[in-house]
Amino acid sequence: MNAPELRRNPTDGRWVIVSADRGKRPSDLKSAAVQSQKESCPFCPGNENKTPSEIFAAGDTARAPNTPEWRERIFYSLNPVVSLEEELDRQGEGMFDMMSGFGVHEVIVNTPLHEDSIATMPLEQLNELILLWKSRLHKLKANPNLKFAMVFGNRGEKAGATIEHSHSQIIATPAVPYRVAIEITTGYDYFISREKCVFCDIFENEIGGERCLWENGNFIVICPYAPRFPYELWIIPKRHSSHFDETEDSDLAGLASAFQSAVKALNKTLNDPPYSFVLHSAPFIEKRMVHYHWHFEIMPRLSNVAGFEWGTGFYINSVPPEVACSTLKESLK
Amino acid sequence: MNAPELRRNPTDGRWVIVSADRGKRPSDLKSAAVQSQKESCPFCPGNENKTPSEIFAAGDTARAPNTPEWRERIFYSLNPVVSLEEELDRQGEGMFDMMSGFGVHEVIVNTPLHEDSIATMPLEQLNELILLWKSRLHKLKANPNLKFAMVFGNRGEKAGATIEHSHSQIIATPAVPYRVAIEITTGYDYFISREKCVFCDIFENEIGGERCLWENGNFIVICPYAPRFPYELWIIPKRHSSHFDETEDSDLAGLASAFQSAVKALNKTLNDPPYSFVLHSAPFIEKRMVHYHWHFEIMPRLSNVAGFEWGTGFYINSVPPEVACSTLKESLK
Repeated sequence: MNAPELRRNPTDGRWVIVSADRGKRPSDLKSAAVQSQKESCPFCPGNENKTPSEIFAAGDTARAPNTPEWRERIFYSLNPVVSLEEELDRQGEGMFDMMSGFGVHEVIVNTPLHEDSIATMPLEQLNELILLWKSRLHKLKANPNLKFAMVFGNRGEKAGATIEHSHSQIIATPAVPYRVAIEITTGYDYFISREKCVFCDIFENEIGGERCLWENGNFIVICPYAPRFPYELWIIPKRHSSHFDETEDSDLAGLASAFQSAVKALNKTLNDPPYSFVLHSAPFIEKRMVHYHWHFEIMPRLSNVAGFEWGTGFYINSVPPEVACSTLKESLK
Repeated sequence: MNAPELRRNPTDGRWVIVSADRGKRPSDLKSAAVQSQKESCPFCPGNENKTPSEIFAAGDTARAPNTPEWRERIFYSLNPVVSLEEELDRQGEGMFDMMSGFGVHEVIVNTPLHEDSIATMPLEQLNELILLWKSRLHKLKANPNLKFAMVFGNRGEKAGATIEHSHSQIIATPAVPYRVAIEITTGYDYFISREKCVFCDIFENEIGGERCLWENGNFIVICPYAPRFPYELWIIPKRHSSHFDETEDSDLAGLASAFQSAVKALNKTLNDPPYSFVLHSAPFIEKRMVHYHWHFEIMPRLSNVAGFEWGTGFYINSVPPEVACSTLKESLK
């Protein structure tokens, strides 16, 4: 097997990407160290030739592609886990289901400044980045073979980042990821029994409460009631919307400052911890859903996850979200 | 909040243990280093006073409790995540569900020998350990407030072990863990549509095939078709049985050598990798289930799991199970 494949585990319904190109020998499996030298950073302006050719860059219209003077820059991943070059092919393999590794894997350099980050960049820059995520999702949605796209970011080696320079990624696939699929069915059950969106209920329940870290007109940042990880944060839009990419720009105003406040609080409290964030939004194939509500999850990576958690999905969290929230709030004062 | 709590996340149905006692300040969250000094090892014979008082030990009947000369030794965890001292109390907290941190957390020292491990201990020792897990589950099942118990083990710091001396753990709770709950509903759907247990089908499909690492009369060891982790292994009993603790001792014969072969292959191929194993068995509250089938999962911890995986549940595995299996098979020759 050389081409990547999407395979479905029949005992729990989870799709897994099996991507042999990423390292075949056992010795290749060590996590890569973060590439931090500013001089050789492939994401810094002037080093555009060190990345695949750009798909898009925000900058002056007169700017030539793959030259400096951009504000954000997008290209296909050098080590894509899925690719448009694969033909979409879904088939059974005996009792199993698989698909070819069809999809899109894009990298977005969030800022031209090597030292900048989501916590420190000007809010206008962060807002432009957020709107760029939205417009990329719009573009990807036009491909009828893509069912879902995930926007995510990793910061720090422990969170899986291999390059220090602030960047985000989008992976679009013909399958809906496990956790989102389960949120959708759980949200549906909740809606059927209570005629309410569970996230709308969470918003109403949490606003101004002891797990509410931050709010503005459009967003709240909360420590969720039952977090898997210490200091986990969710950003939830106040107005119900299932699809991030269909949310009006005006309703996204304030997301930049919500996001930045969340990350600033984590950085101050936990001394620049490694963290990952991920956008959960409804699949492309769905129209507006009353029982699903897009949101961001931010997960600091503070301690190892042991076998018990891996094996059972039963997480042990040593910091109650009420304690986390009050500590984080102090840091924003 | 001081006492541990079980909390249910309403957006996906997952129960989480919130256990504040395990470390409140951010600086406490670093993973503990493995305790490896043989001289001060609390699990070595002669150091019985360094652990909580034993619940049971396999040894001569004339042996006094908490003295040397045992073969396996069991006590409550010094840092329990749940405890029988909590009263079982399930209640709603507004829109949320929680339970007190009622449960049992036991530690089993697998062998008196500090240097020994599942890969190296005599098969009779490993067989006695397996039967001990079974008899502990039997005991715990007698408590009607416990719905589930997990047997698991962590080896190596990256897998979450804090003590080097080979040991396993059991956590029994009034809630069924997420991954097992999902396996049960997925297995039910599979059974309804095909009138077969999905694990029985996997066994029939995989035996002797390119993902089958090892087999004997009662067990197969396979690299599953869609593994989350490189070199993940499952041990599946050939005879259908939903509850490990209700399987006849005679049907457990051969599990020791299946287990040892699996771990030996991992150790030889991956140079003693950190790994975790976990038993998935049906909840205590269920009677014999036609659509669930107990099994062990063994997960080497070779690379970091990045935000994409955490956030979406969509794992990227760089080693196809067919490649993993053929490499592991070589090591057993």
